[in-house]
Amino acid sequence: NQLLICQIHRSTVDLAYEQLVSEGYIEARPYRGYFVCDVTSLLDLRKEKKEEEKPKQKTRTPEIEVDFSPMAVDLGHFAFKAWRRGSKDLFSEESTEWLEAGEGMGEPAFREAICHYLFQSRGVACEPCQILVGAGNEYLLMLLAQMLGSPKKVAMENPTYKQAYEIFCNLGYEVRTVETDDQGMRVSSLQDDADIVYVMPSHQFPMGTVMPMKRRMELLKWAGEKEGRYIIEDDHDSEFRYKGKPIPSLQGSDHEGRVIYLGTFSKSIAPSVRVSYLVLPKSLVAICKQRCGFYASTVPKAWQMLIGAFLQEGHFERHLNRMRSIYKKKRDFILDELKKRKWVRAVHGANAGLHVLVEVDSHFSDTELARLAAGIGIRIYPVSDYDIAECEARKYPQVLLGYGGLREEEIAKGLGALDRIMLFF
Amino acid sequence: NQLLICQIHRSTVDLAYEQLVSEGYIEARPYRGYFVCDVTSLLDLRKEKKEEEKPKQKTRTPEIEVDFSPMAVDLGHFAFKAWRRGSKDLFSEESTEWLEAGEGMGEPAFREAICHYLFQSRGVACEPCQILVGAGNEYLLMLLAQMLGSPKKVAMENPTYKQAYEIFCNLGYEVRTVETDDQGMRVSSLQDDADIVYVMPSHQFPMGTVMPMKRRMELLKWAGEKEGRYIIEDDHDSEFRYKGKPIPSLQGSDHEGRVIYLGTFSKSIAPSVRVSYLVLPKSLVAICKQRCGFYASTVPKAWQMLIGAFLQEGHFERHLNRMRSIYKKKRDFILDELKKRKWVRAVHGANAGLHVLVEVDSHFSDTELARLAAGIGIRIYPVSDYDIAECEARKYPQVLLGYGGLREEEIAKGLGALDRIMLFF
Repeated sequence: NQLLICQIHRSTVDLAYEQLVSEGYIEARPYRGYFVCDVTSLLDLRKEKKEEEKPKQKTRTPEIEVDFSPMAVDLGHFAFKAWRRGSKDLFSEESTEWLEAGEGMGEPAFREAICHYLFQSRGVACEPCQILVGAGNEYLLMLLAQMLGSPKKVAMENPTYKQAYEIFCNLGYEVRTVETDDQGMRVSSLQDDADIVYVMPSHQFPMGTVMPMKRRMELLKWAGEKEGRYIIEDDHDSEFRYKGKPIPSLQGSDHEGRVIYLGTFSKSIAPSVRVSYLVLPKSLVAICKQRCGFYASTVPKAWQMLIGAFLQEGHFERHLNRMRSIYKKKRDFILDELKKRKWVRAVHGANAGLHVLVEVDSHFSDTELARLAAGIGIRIYPVSDYDIAECEARKYPQVLLGYGGLREEEIAKGLGALDRIMLFF
Repeated sequence: NQLLICQIHRSTVDLAYEQLVSEGYIEARPYRGYFVCDVTSLLDLRKEKKEEEKPKQKTRTPEIEVDFSPMAVDLGHFAFKAWRRGSKDLFSEESTEWLEAGEGMGEPAFREAICHYLFQSRGVACEPCQILVGAGNEYLLMLLAQMLGSPKKVAMENPTYKQAYEIFCNLGYEVRTVETDDQGMRVSSLQDDADIVYVMPSHQFPMGTVMPMKRRMELLKWAGEKEGRYIIEDDHDSEFRYKGKPIPSLQGSDHEGRVIYLGTFSKSIAPSVRVSYLVLPKSLVAICKQRCGFYASTVPKAWQMLIGAFLQEGHFERHLNRMRSIYKKKRDFILDELKKRKWVRAVHGANAGLHVLVEVDSHFSDTELARLAAGIGIRIYPVSDYDIAECEARKYPQVLLGYGGLREEEIAKGLGALDRIMLFF
């Protein structure tokens, strides 16, 4: 042993000892030397039981050929050229700006661009300081919960946007469902049952209802009646309206700072860009800074600069206009095709967004229809998937058909396949 | 009036009526015509009181010339070329992949690249399915809280990473501070006081302590003693270790699935990239899918692809190696400079990370020193800023000096300015 050690350079041995000291396997005692640390407790630790992976029972489902997802968008017509130029400018040799620390609520220029856009196209009245940028609606709702404090009672329509419902549940909120009619939420049945109302007044998901002015005023009045009441306006897809002018936001009618406006680029660009924004009432801005001011923005600074430039240079508006006419063509196509079908009883919510709600003449339930459709490679979305509470029995099954991500021939193929189910079952 | 209307085209009038109907200002009654809706309640709404902006009392502080921020990184030596090439490839004409929907826990290729990196450089033993990608540590801790359920008791060192502390408070966690010594947290004083322990065993922030093997084993043993106990290992800056080999992660010694490993690209690339990751024990993966499976990833897919390629193509490793030698030079420089100063009693935690902890020979408190320094344009960070509980009085004031973002001449200038304070006050 002595011999072997002698052939290793002293510095190598030193390094080895030093590393053993750093990691705490040995300790140095002055004037005495190195001593092994007592790490016997190490031996007490049992090996983690290897979880036996159960071989998953694979049900043989055919591959989905046409997916009428209401969330899908058209990716083929994106403004790739402008985007590529923007990214080239951003990551150019000279600039380290995109790597530098950013602002917690979002980059000032980006927030200003959003503010300008919202005022122009959605009638939202705000200043850039009220805008909070974040990585998706879900994250922003988590932050909002931290701003509003102890768990609240939130009122939602039924059916509604399921993701929001699940977050509220995860955050310990008490969720109440409120009766709805063809004008949306019945404000008269709200009363003291809630602190917060979550609505989509310009185009309710999934029903497609537009909340008329009277209802909106009632809702604002309700919110103003008690301190601490807020309305969350989720304006998820109103960029795409095909009939008349856009329905202005509820926020624009709010003069008391009760509406928290929630917007996203998920529909207008794509869900995978993961950028949303809140417009906070001024009273909440201070609270946001106090309770959430220490959070860094969840959207990479480079990404904010990229999308910000896309907005400022007019590419976004041009992109929206182009997409609106592309989606309108698809929407007209699917409406024409649906009109020809005897199994279609009615079509709702076709004036905006990227899907239609179809009432089907069938004795099957919507879920059964979806299962049958999946069996022949077509995915349709039963409206009952969005129920968050027992719903009055629907007279006829209703399914959502999203067309945003499909080409006309895919829509035709999908509906053709559905014909087989509707006629033979 | 009659005359005027006659000169407007019928279709224009129709459009106007339609829009008024859509927005709910008028309603159409069959065979009777249009009727104005009752929106008188609109008049009840008071105007939002204009908040009077108080003119902020601006205290005249000189501009900060040298900021010894412990969070700052060197941006000038980033691998811009590789990054630019990567972004060009990603946003090329042919590809829409980056716009398509991604996976909730993160892109598979990205998670695989992280997994490989963690095993190689940090001794983390995991599979890609255990990795959860998210937009920053804060967001991931929010998700973790949703996975772990009802508010927990979390034990932290004092001082510690303040951001984590503030999140735990916001999430309703009960925070306990645990006694520490020069080996980090004293496990013996933990007992039943906590369900979760938050530690930085490889390089504690801000103290720079390395937790020796014996302590680590004690901690793992504590966690294994009761169902539901977990250790959050925040491994924030161990990419940069200047003496010996890297200290392996605590996760690598854990055979019972009690360690939740938290890593980030904030130090290794830059804070503004906003990408972190959790390595979940296998038992938590299923719970994550169940409770948080509906969340889309908070990191844009394009961003994950960009950083993923950066890792896979070896740019990240090369970047780390280059940065390590750049930071080592800066660290050696600041250590040499500090050695020359009589007011420096001791320097701690210099073997890793991007800052040193300096014990100062002064009768001022650390906060007073920081205020004096700010008065002459130098920002230093008092260690008491990171206290989350009353701390045993420190014998001498301690301040953090981050050097990652500074050039040598800035470090020299900053220390030169500090000399003036230390000698004259």
